[in-house]
Amino acid sequence: MTTEFHGIIGYTITPFSNDGEQLDLPALGQSIERLIASGVHAIAPLGSTGEGAYLSDTEWQQVAEYSLAQIGKRLPSIVSVSDLTTAGAIRRARFAQAHGADAVMVLPSAYWKLSATEILQHYRAIGAAVDLPIMLYNNPATSGTDMPVELILRIVREVENVTMVKESTGDIQRMHQLQLRGEGQVPFYNGCNPLALEAFMAGATGWCTAAPNLIPALNLGLYQAIRAGELEQAKALFYQQLPMLDFILKGGLPATIKAGLALTGLAVGEPRRPVFGLDEQGRATLRGLLDELGVAL
Amino acid sequence: MTTEFHGIIGYTITPFSNDGEQLDLPALGQSIERLIASGVHAIAPLGSTGEGAYLSDTEWQQVAEYSLAQIGKRLPSIVSVSDLTTAGAIRRARFAQAHGADAVMVLPSAYWKLSATEILQHYRAIGAAVDLPIMLYNNPATSGTDMPVELILRIVREVENVTMVKESTGDIQRMHQLQLRGEGQVPFYNGCNPLALEAFMAGATGWCTAAPNLIPALNLGLYQAIRAGELEQAKALFYQQLPMLDFILKGGLPATIKAGLALTGLAVGEPRRPVFGLDEQGRATLRGLLDELGVAL
Amino acid sequence: MTTEFHGIIGYTITPFSNDGEQLDLPALGQSIERLIASGVHAIAPLGSTGEGAYLSDTEWQQVAEYSLAQIGKRLPSIVSVSDLTTAGAIRRARFAQAHGADAVMVLPSAYWKLSATEILQHYRAIGAAVDLPIMLYNNPATSGTDMPVELILRIVREVENVTMVKESTGDIQRMHQLQLRGEGQVPFYNGCNPLALEAFMAGATGWCTAAPNLIPALNLGLYQAIRAGELEQAKALFYQQLPMLDFILKGGLPATIKAGLALTGLAVGEPRRPVFGLDEQGRATLRGLLDELGVAL
Amino acid sequence: MTTEFHGIIGYTITPFSNDGEQLDLPALGQSIERLIASGVHAIAPLGSTGEGAYLSDTEWQQVAEYSLAQIGKRLPSIVSVSDLTTAGAIRRARFAQAHGADAVMVLPSAYWKLSATEILQHYRAIGAAVDLPIMLYNNPATSGTDMPVELILRIVREVENVTMVKESTGDIQRMHQLQLRGEGQVPFYNGCNPLALEAFMAGATGWCTAAPNLIPALNLGLYQAIRAGELEQAKALFYQQLPMLDFILKGGLPATIKAGLALTGLAVGEPRRPVFGLDEQGRATLRGLLDELGVAL
Repeated sequence: MTTEFHGIIGYTITPFSNDGEQLDLPALGQSIERLIASGVHAIAPLGSTGEGAYLSDTEWQQVAEYSLAQIGKRLPSIVSVSDLTTAGAIRRARFAQAHGADAVMVLPSAYWKLSATEILQHYRAIGAAVDLPIMLYNNPATSGTDMPVELILRIVREVENVTMVKESTGDIQRMHQLQLRGEGQVPFYNGCNPLALEAFMAGATGWCTAAPNLIPALNLGLYQAIRAGELEQAKALFYQQLPMLDFILKGGLPATIKAGLALTGLAVGEPRRPVFGLDEQGRATLRGLLDELGVAL
Repeated sequence: MTTEFHGIIGYTITPFSNDGEQLDLPALGQSIERLIASGVHAIAPLGSTGEGAYLSDTEWQQVAEYSLAQIGKRLPSIVSVSDLTTAGAIRRARFAQAHGADAVMVLPSAYWKLSATEILQHYRAIGAAVDLPIMLYNNPATSGTDMPVELILRIVREVENVTMVKESTGDIQRMHQLQLRGEGQVPFYNGCNPLALEAFMAGATGWCTAAPNLIPALNLGLYQAIRAGELEQAKALFYQQLPMLDFILKGGLPATIKAGLALTGLAVGEPRRPVFGLDEQGRATLRGLLDELGVAL
Repeated sequence: MTTEFHGIIGYTITPFSNDGEQLDLPALGQSIERLIASGVHAIAPLGSTGEGAYLSDTEWQQVAEYSLAQIGKRLPSIVSVSDLTTAGAIRRARFAQAHGADAVMVLPSAYWKLSATEILQHYRAIGAAVDLPIMLYNNPATSGTDMPVELILRIVREVENVTMVKESTGDIQRMHQLQLRGEGQVPFYNGCNPLALEAFMAGATGWCTAAPNLIPALNLGLYQAIRAGELEQAKALFYQQLPMLDFILKGGLPATIKAGLALTGLAVGEPRRPVFGLDEQGRATLRGLLDELGVAL
Repeated sequence: MTTEFHGIIGYTITPFSNDGEQLDLPALGQSIERLIASGVHAIAPLGSTGEGAYLSDTEWQQVAEYSLAQIGKRLPSIVSVSDLTTAGAIRRARFAQAHGADAVMVLPSAYWKLSATEILQHYRAIGAAVDLPIMLYNNPATSGTDMPVELILRIVREVENVTMVKESTGDIQRMHQLQLRGEGQVPFYNGCNPLALEAFMAGATGWCTAAPNLIPALNLGLYQAIRAGELEQAKALFYQQLPMLDFILKGGLPATIKAGLALTGLAVGEPRRPVFGLDEQGRATLRGLLDELGVAL
């Protein structure tokens, strides 16, 4: 199964009203239009950046439906359908499929640490429930569950529609092993922003990132330089955007991306509590970073 | 504020139908009756053992209401109201209060790692929403967020109704620091089963545990031996039950306690997927452990 | 094989001249006399506190010989003979035996992380080279090598004269497992000062500690209270001395013990560089702690 | 101060007689000749691979003197002079300088964990004692001490002749920060073999490695491809040698490199105990890896 997902995969935020209680769907639509206009290669609603974990089931469905309609098949879409229960993830995956998603992404969220068998069965059940390609997502920092390369490859072998791997540990050796042991047949994607340069060098098919909400030209430029074999150019572009990539990693994706969108004129509210928005000092730093990169404020 | 919570605080499971889809409230009632009959000093519904994190909002409310009605003020009750959002935790805390809970327990669940300020504000908001005492619950293994002693004491000082601390890191030094820096004024409770003996020695007010579902006499005996200053007896009772305590920790609380209840004649279903129930080998080991401890099977 | 080592095992420092270059053997003699007079049950030269790792071979032999002569069989002695090479550890163990040591202690020091087989063979070779009982010493914080309980018990079973285990991870569960899986037949000793109370509760035979250089009465009192089954007294004595135990752990044993001895009138120089002695602020804190505990300054 | 060290810096082993007791200096000479003939850009005696930590002072001096004489200024040389004491490291650094070394390398070895101030002072003292450039070496896996980027840059700023940084944590973000915060003025070198490709991409000046003892053409080829901007070629060469780089990392440098040299006809003995040489299975794997890479056996 070949994949249509490659290059820069842009993650959307989920805008709220000022009190954090209501969804702001029109603002969501505007942010998606910005991403599409920027030239990203695919769009991913409801990921970590999209605060999918903090939405009620009803809200989640509203955002999924609205996002897919807005994208309108202009670009490939991949919807994060992670849920703590297998039944919940299946329900979301089916909903995404019914509303036109091209793929779904699954993080094995956990309260109780999951065994390899439990994780495999989780993917197997979701895989059996939909006809879409599934991107397996490894991010122990948010899920609490680290899937070693051996387990990932086992899942890819045993669950037919798990065809893509998003690796967010930040350990480049994981990608090396995916490449080596997967014999170059398992497309992997980088989910750790400050690893963007090296992940592409190591063979990543794409970069899953919320950064294109703010600095799409730099993100796309890095990918194009790598594709063109322009090593020095790639390195220069990477170091240029690295302070911003570090900032959004450390400041938290929803908080920093939402603050950045506000600075560029698109009000999208703040993250939902208990997560805080960026404080004044953080906003000032962010403004400085954006300014230095030539982003119109 | 003095607390009525001390000694052995028994955690309830949440029984499901065989397919894991439906709640089995009558079985829940029976398991609560067993706990009360066993002599525990308080009852805690909807904790980790109770799979609170895996329930829909509606189910959560059904279990909370049913449990509190069943307990019927015969024993002090403390309901876990943790939720990923502050708004959700407040909703649950108010529901628990409205239905007669004597206290609520709050774990700062997190998808995005929370800052100290975010955690403090989370407790402050919940504290302001209810008139009940709150037990702060530190368990980085399930919440992903480790609250150092300094932060815990700050929350206790700044949020009036946070009056109890449940420590589940398993590091006895945390309890030493709570005792020393809290100047003996902050009641702390042990949430790590294999630390039961030493936690009481270090000054823990109580032991929060699901073990009384299976071996209440040994749990209570340990507490009584400590209270009576019977050091050798306490040590002997602890080492007698330690293999069982280790087993339920490693096997997972819902899986092992549910399997144990089934072995003693009370069918309560299995954990909700993706979590698995105990496999055949695990059941055989558990049967052997219970048998050795003289539990009627 | 029964062991004569129990109770409070006092570790000696190694005094240097003011420039850190020369050994000060007379001061060493005085510090040993203090320990013996204080009532400790055994003496351990050249451990971590004794900066054994920082001595040349010649210096090490001088300190070993002098210490053993000074002790003069008045108390059981156990000499740390750890060395990065197996040949070096054997040389030291033989030297200790030839000069009258009653036992030797071995930490598997490592530059390259050692495998279980390499560690076992290290103990086997040393065991074959001497006729003394050997105390296996597990302290990953200084050795870089953590020996799990299973490996420790395998070494105890396979190397006849490894008859004692010193556990310094600070994890009480290790002691539980030594007690359970060793079926109460493997004497273990606590090497983590702030775990003293709980280690004795869990069944530790002794407490290996440098604290008796400064507060021997409190250390011995805790042991005696436990032996007498005086649980409340043990707890009170433990919390009384805990701030001092925490201080010497965090400040570094050679730095804090040497500073404390100087405050009580015995000049023993400073640790050897790169390790620093206690700074002014540290000395002031130490003076306050000693003062509060009634130590004559 | 510009540095003459760049590209592939080959680390030497230290050959022993079969019983591990005696140095085999003629074999050392042969292994150095091989390295020089292979085209590496510099040679580094007595590093981790050279088992410097396992040698007596006398042996260390013999190896240093012999190696420097053998190199005879044909290539730049950098001698590892690490010692647990500051005095010992100074002694070794002066010895290396007196015998013609072009630079020295210093790992802050530690028994007691060192503070930032202690580490800084250690480098300051060594820096004041010699007129050579110093390569600061960060490798927490062997030294037990992790120097964060901030501390490294502080040392580089404050100690004039610390002019190079060898980073062996394997975390590419450390190199990013050295590049960013060092403003491109601090030459850094990669000491983690499986990071070779990405380290060069991130701006590493050289690769410190023992691999050229076995596969110099591949190591040099990777460097040259990067220099020539041949991105695809660099990637292909990297993945070709990665299984070997992983093998020597996991098997231990002295054990695997010594076994590999034996397979290629140069007997150099085994590592010194307690470290084991490669076992039969390991040798067979190594033979297969070398064979696949076209190394003449």
